[in-house]
Amino acid sequence: MHNPFEIAQYQVAHAAKMLGLDQNVTEILLHPMRVLCVSFPVTMDDGTTRIFHGFRSQHNDAIGPTKGGIRFHPNVTMDEVKALSMWMTFKCGVVGLPYGGAKGGVICNPKELSKAELERVSRGFIQAIASIIGPEKDIPAPDVYTNAEVMGWMMDEFSRIRQAFTPGVITGKHPIIGGSLGRDKATARGCVYTIREAAAKLEIPMQGATVAIQGFGNAGSFTAFLLKELGCRIVAISDSQGGVYNPDGIDPQEALTVKAKTGSVIYLNDKAQRISNQDLRELAVNILVP
Amino acid sequence: MHNPFEIAQYQVAHAAKMLGLDQNVTEILLHPMRVLCVSFPVTMDDGTTRIFHGFRSQHNDAIGPTKGGIRFHPNVTMDEVKALSMWMTFKCGVVGLPYGGAKGGVICNPKELSKAELERVSRGFIQAIASIIGPEKDIPAPDVYTNAEVMGWMMDEFSRIRQAFTPGVITGKHPIIGGSLGRDKATARGCVYTIREAAAKLEIPMQGATVAIQGFGNAGSFTAFLLKELGCRIVAISDSQGGVYNPDGIDPQEALTVKAKTGSVIYLNDKAQRISNQDLRELAVNILVP
Amino acid sequence: MHNPFEIAQYQVAHAAKMLGLDQNVTEILLHPMRVLCVSFPVTMDDGTTRIFHGFRSQHNDAIGPTKGGIRFHPNVTMDEVKALSMWMTFKCGVVGLPYGGAKGGVICNPKELSKAELERVSRGFIQAIASIIGPEKDIPAPDVYTNAEVMGWMMDEFSRIRQAFTPGVITGKHPIIGGSLGRDKATARGCVYTIREAAAKLEIPMQGATVAIQGFGNAGSFTAFLLKELGCRIVAISDSQGGVYNPDGIDPQEALTVKAKTGSVIYLNDKAQRISNQDLRELAVNILVP
Amino acid sequence: MHNPFEIAQYQVAHAAKMLGLDQNVTEILLHPMRVLCVSFPVTMDDGTTRIFHGFRSQHNDAIGPTKGGIRFHPNVTMDEVKALSMWMTFKCGVVGLPYGGAKGGVICNPKELSKAELERVSRGFIQAIASIIGPEKDIPAPDVYTNAEVMGWMMDEFSRIRQAFTPGVITGKHPIIGGSLGRDKATARGCVYTIREAAAKLEIPMQGATVAIQGFGNAGSFTAFLLKELGCRIVAISDSQGGVYNPDGIDPQEALTVKAKTGSVIYLNDKAQRISNQDLRELAVNILVP
Amino acid sequence: MHNPFEIAQYQVAHAAKMLGLDQNVTEILLHPMRVLCVSFPVTMDDGTTRIFHGFRSQHNDAIGPTKGGIRFHPNVTMDEVKALSMWMTFKCGVVGLPYGGAKGGVICNPKELSKAELERVSRGFIQAIASIIGPEKDIPAPDVYTNAEVMGWMMDEFSRIRQAFTPGVITGKHPIIGGSLGRDKATARGCVYTIREAAAKLEIPMQGATVAIQGFGNAGSFTAFLLKELGCRIVAISDSQGGVYNPDGIDPQEALTVKAKTGSVIYLNDKAQRISNQDLRELAVNILVP
Amino acid sequence: MHNPFEIAQYQVAHAAKMLGLDQNVTEILLHPMRVLCVSFPVTMDDGTTRIFHGFRSQHNDAIGPTKGGIRFHPNVTMDEVKALSMWMTFKCGVVGLPYGGAKGGVICNPKELSKAELERVSRGFIQAIASIIGPEKDIPAPDVYTNAEVMGWMMDEFSRIRQAFTPGVITGKHPIIGGSLGRDKATARGCVYTIREAAAKLEIPMQGATVAIQGFGNAGSFTAFLLKELGCRIVAISDSQGGVYNPDGIDPQEALTVKAKTGSVIYLNDKAQRISNQDLRELAVNILVP
Repeated sequence: MHNPFEIAQYQVAHAAKMLGLDQNVTEILLHPMRVLCVSFPVTMDDGTTRIFHGFRSQHNDAIGPTKGGIRFHPNVTMDEVKALSMWMTFKCGVVGLPYGGAKGGVICNPKELSKAELERVSRGFIQAIASIIGPEKDIPAPDVYTNAEVMGWMMDEFSRIRQAFTPGVITGKHPIIGGSLGRDKATARGCVYTIREAAAKLEIPMQGATVAIQGFGNAGSFTAFLLKELGCRIVAISDSQGGVYNPDGIDPQEALTVKAKTGSVIYLNDKAQRISNQDLRELAVNILVP
Repeated sequence: MHNPFEIAQYQVAHAAKMLGLDQNVTEILLHPMRVLCVSFPVTMDDGTTRIFHGFRSQHNDAIGPTKGGIRFHPNVTMDEVKALSMWMTFKCGVVGLPYGGAKGGVICNPKELSKAELERVSRGFIQAIASIIGPEKDIPAPDVYTNAEVMGWMMDEFSRIRQAFTPGVITGKHPIIGGSLGRDKATARGCVYTIREAAAKLEIPMQGATVAIQGFGNAGSFTAFLLKELGCRIVAISDSQGGVYNPDGIDPQEALTVKAKTGSVIYLNDKAQRISNQDLRELAVNILVP
Repeated sequence: MHNPFEIAQYQVAHAAKMLGLDQNVTEILLHPMRVLCVSFPVTMDDGTTRIFHGFRSQHNDAIGPTKGGIRFHPNVTMDEVKALSMWMTFKCGVVGLPYGGAKGGVICNPKELSKAELERVSRGFIQAIASIIGPEKDIPAPDVYTNAEVMGWMMDEFSRIRQAFTPGVITGKHPIIGGSLGRDKATARGCVYTIREAAAKLEIPMQGATVAIQGFGNAGSFTAFLLKELGCRIVAISDSQGGVYNPDGIDPQEALTVKAKTGSVIYLNDKAQRISNQDLRELAVNILVP
Repeated sequence: MHNPFEIAQYQVAHAAKMLGLDQNVTEILLHPMRVLCVSFPVTMDDGTTRIFHGFRSQHNDAIGPTKGGIRFHPNVTMDEVKALSMWMTFKCGVVGLPYGGAKGGVICNPKELSKAELERVSRGFIQAIASIIGPEKDIPAPDVYTNAEVMGWMMDEFSRIRQAFTPGVITGKHPIIGGSLGRDKATARGCVYTIREAAAKLEIPMQGATVAIQGFGNAGSFTAFLLKELGCRIVAISDSQGGVYNPDGIDPQEALTVKAKTGSVIYLNDKAQRISNQDLRELAVNILVP
Repeated sequence: MHNPFEIAQYQVAHAAKMLGLDQNVTEILLHPMRVLCVSFPVTMDDGTTRIFHGFRSQHNDAIGPTKGGIRFHPNVTMDEVKALSMWMTFKCGVVGLPYGGAKGGVICNPKELSKAELERVSRGFIQAIASIIGPEKDIPAPDVYTNAEVMGWMMDEFSRIRQAFTPGVITGKHPIIGGSLGRDKATARGCVYTIREAAAKLEIPMQGATVAIQGFGNAGSFTAFLLKELGCRIVAISDSQGGVYNPDGIDPQEALTVKAKTGSVIYLNDKAQRISNQDLRELAVNILVP
Repeated sequence: MHNPFEIAQYQVAHAAKMLGLDQNVTEILLHPMRVLCVSFPVTMDDGTTRIFHGFRSQHNDAIGPTKGGIRFHPNVTMDEVKALSMWMTFKCGVVGLPYGGAKGGVICNPKELSKAELERVSRGFIQAIASIIGPEKDIPAPDVYTNAEVMGWMMDEFSRIRQAFTPGVITGKHPIIGGSLGRDKATARGCVYTIREAAAKLEIPMQGATVAIQGFGNAGSFTAFLLKELGCRIVAISDSQGGVYNPDGIDPQEALTVKAKTGSVIYLNDKAQRISNQDLRELAVNILVP
């Protein structure tokens, strides 16, 4: 059972059974209410036309509009977005957001597209799905290989079709056109809130807790800053080239500067001992951020 | 290659190659521009809820709104409606209609549904696809196991959503609510037009031509009347119970009356000799309507 | 039982019983589906504000948008427009028009309003009922004390609200803004068609048939012309001042000219003998147009 | 003058006179601007069709959308909803809400309808009035015999017609679909605010004030809790079976528990003396909540 | 007074005076009711952005939607389109079409734009003016330097914004997407109708009438064919390189073939004598088509 | 270079150069994206029709709907509103508001119009520009010679066209219909905030700072109150009749009372010495409010 949609269905069926959920309700939850598959032409920079294929799955809108990311990836499949849209309903549900789940994807490799082509793919996809999205229907967001700029093109295209400035159709836009402040640090912040709550439950004091963080990109580095603010000691960090370990603590700002200059945290300083990612994950620390 | 969508794609690719069609255009024609898969709950007569799954495929709207039937069948698949929507584009094209192709289907067995359940399935499907159909977008029609009554429910549901009487959203309605006259005999008439044109090309005079018709339901019997009007001699007809043969000619009206009374044309009269459907297809006639 | 709505209900119930109509259907037909009562302020020429009250009753839209006149009269009541909307459904039905019945009215005396006030009342009423009318919902028309000019104001007001030229919202407009040609003579023409069909049924030859026409306004005079064209002999006509009788026939054109000059047909000529309206109705003629 | 609409008109006219209101404005306030009467068919559980009649009166939208409940009651009349919509304008006005008044009703006895029938009546009424309501036009709410579940069906039906999740069309929904928290206790809280303000004006200290509460359902019991919080002493409470009196004070929690177990507060405890509702209303207390 | 708008105003004022038109009406006719000036960015093939400026003037919509061409020309001005929109109202009026006049223009030189740039300019202009055009508001058409292909892009862009196939928004499209047949020959045909009517009035028999045609492009050559069909003798034709004269008559088909091969009609044949355009205009012929 | 639009373009070009702005972006900023010029008829109190001309310029909507006032003035020109709309974009930008700039104007002299005529001009202008404004497109506001009452008529007219209460279409309405509280004092407050920030930068203590205010209308008088609250000493004020100077300080409340009674602040009291406006501007004060 490797198909993600079958996995998602199995999980829902299992959870429904444990909850003793009404069979009628379970049946509704086992399938996205709406999956739209589109094929749309895009003019490439060399003048040829290429057909792109995309999907938008909306799982359930019983308590509000649906909501979920759009990914651009060569391997995205219909079953993948169906599964992700189901999980999104429950992700919204557990934190009490008044939204149902959705997810979308376009089969493409953004790394092989020029910026102008990427813009045309983004606009073309929104044209193709415009009749089923909107602030009061389904609200896309960034996801794998899509960012604030892509969201901006999509919002602009939708506004053009509605002939009205409609920032509410999409989240993850740049703040200048109505995006929320703090979105770039939201993942790190959510991670730290979870750590704090888990630590409280496990009675691990944050003050002085040792921390190892695997990955030191946007999410990882900001997590380091936030944990340090809460009194933790960052003893190990890593990136794709390997990691460094200093039981006396690593300064996130210094690490960030080194990484910006050299391309990796492994060049940190003499006090930091090089370790592998594998080693990092096996360190005896209070908090491991994998 | 039994999958109907692959067959349709093969045919389009083959035709495009023979026509020397621009590769960009061929690419566009190889995929429906939009396929919507929906799952919607219906309250059954016993109070339980059942989820029904349906599809609507719209192949291409370059020269006008798309158009095509909605079938209700337990075995309908997404690939089937995709293939049918592609063929529909070309069916419209060869007769010069300003429409693109579409097709829809709901997985269900109408024979196992009460009339009230059938109405709720019909209305539920239209609610689910309402945002992508309309007189200026995509116009459904009857198809396998759907009839004028089903079209009426669908039109009514769509009108309710638009808050406006919208007969143009669907064809095949009863004339009293805006359906076209003559639709019930359109299949037979189209068949006879084709025979007449083929006969002219093959230089077979209609006057006195001998005819064998397999099947004597709505289409078959009306074909018999029309061919007789054109001077043909109907020498054999059949139904699921078998056929009859009379080289001196069979009167369609008499056959219809006998079938209405007895349930089959095989009880026609003494002059008509019983034959099998197999025999009928092998008769030496000028025109065989299989 | 003088209330017109109760009369209409009685008639429908009676007819339904005679037709053996399904009780469910009868129930639906016994009540207009929608009656809107509005009160709207109008600025009078002297600067004061007066509240006007109006009604719009839509009886049934099962086979198409509803349709029916708007009358301006001091004594119009809600029950009157409800009854008229019911009758309108059946008037449309007997001639096979794909419309349901509607009727509207505003309580006012147009004779006591200036033209500017009349325009403001007309526009105010349309603003008040705009959300329930439209070419695809309900289509008003002229009626008692409303004419082509009033319809023009109403159409213009509706177009202003829709921000789109919408001649189809109302009938009876002046042809220059999309009204139908021939509307002014439609009543006379309909009358003559009925006479012709009745005469055929009763085997009265039109050629040479004697005719008496009570009333010689727009409808009456044009009826005279049309019947003369069909070979009838007009032997008597009348207006509010009395009538004239000439067994050798009256020339409609001459009568019209005399009436235009003198104000009444009674001054026709020496050959025409004066009679009362009462006498006219008792003449031994083949065709009496009362 | 028993007709509620005439009473309401009399009150408005009287108040307008005392305020020296401009006659033009008074005229506008004396009539609802729009009253829609609808008759709609509902399929009953036994397969028959029944016609239901409903009303929606919108009094005045000068300062904002109109707002007001929908009641389901066998005796609701057009004049009743007209009167209630007028009063609603002034109820909103005195507390400074930017809404005008409206009210609706359906003639039916919810106790004689199954839940499925009740849902179909609720949905049918919204379909019938959909063109004149909406978050920016007129916003219904629960009223006599209608509750959060009915509001949910109505909101869902309206959202289906708009093809957009529209929680703002109706208030009083369950919080899970966008209803406001605290609505169930809003009546009690409003009552207590009024008492507090009145007491301040009359210089009755809340601390130690004696209270008698007639009725101990949702509103009454929560009023008791809130007044106790403010320092009052609840000395008497009652329900349909009678009341109890204890000059030393009654504990609302204990009373609620007893009522839940036994069905009435009269079984409270030995210290509480039984009294009639009549007696309760005549007790010498500082605060009487009738 | 070289400004075209001032000329148009002078003409209207003059005509109104001669007609004794009500001053209020004249005032309305002296100004377009709406002129929209837009500036919109277009990405050029070299990646730079260029701002284009365009206009759309709608003169008067009293009797129907407005209607008129869109020209692409480097020298188009606001006053020019204002004047042209006024003349268009009267052009529609004299032939009784239920349309008001409009006209649009974009400042650009289509000869210096690639086809892809031309498409983007066309789409950009429609996006900019979309909110004021539509089948029920204002209907553009081809004009100077815009053709069926440009109209197709514009129609497609508008349909994309409305999310509905809307061929009625624009005329002059290719027939395959809803354009009218015969449009390419409409100018010539209109010209010939006018000649025929004028000849009848002047009592010049068409049979044998001599004709000189200046200009032998699409309009001129088809005019020649049509006049020859009516019995005229074409004695002289010309193009930008000069003309030819043959008193015995010129065969339009031969002239067209020669022009296609050689680029000019001047190489016609030995019997045709070369003349200048000036000479042609001064020939003693019955019919001169300048 | 007296034309305001040319001035604005010069300023933008200059600023863009100093900022090293991308040429493509500069080009876009140099022209309003949309300017609508309208001519609309208004019925005057004497029954004649007068044509009014108005403009609405929308400069740029890249970061949100456009926003800006509507002025009624006999000398307003298209170039003036274009310039003002450009400046408005930058005014919004410098304070970080998510709006682009717009501006509108109607050529008229409100002082020569009756109130009823002014209302009809206001409503007529909104009807004419309704298709390009709205809460999500472009939001007008009061400006020269337009006030809360005019905004109310405009909002009402727009709501009538949308058939929905739409307070968000316009700002500057009276609070009773959705206007913001404090708008009447917003100019003074903004002025005082600026003074406070400038003083802080220049290290001038507000406590005891001497102030001269030229102009003592709504903005000037309220500025005086606010500055006094902050500890400043108002030593001179003026109006169109001249000024008064009192080095010991002037009480704003007393000045307001005197002005209300006598029509000018010059009659303040004996301690206040009369000065000219010229003198006032040359006083040695810490803060000059010109």
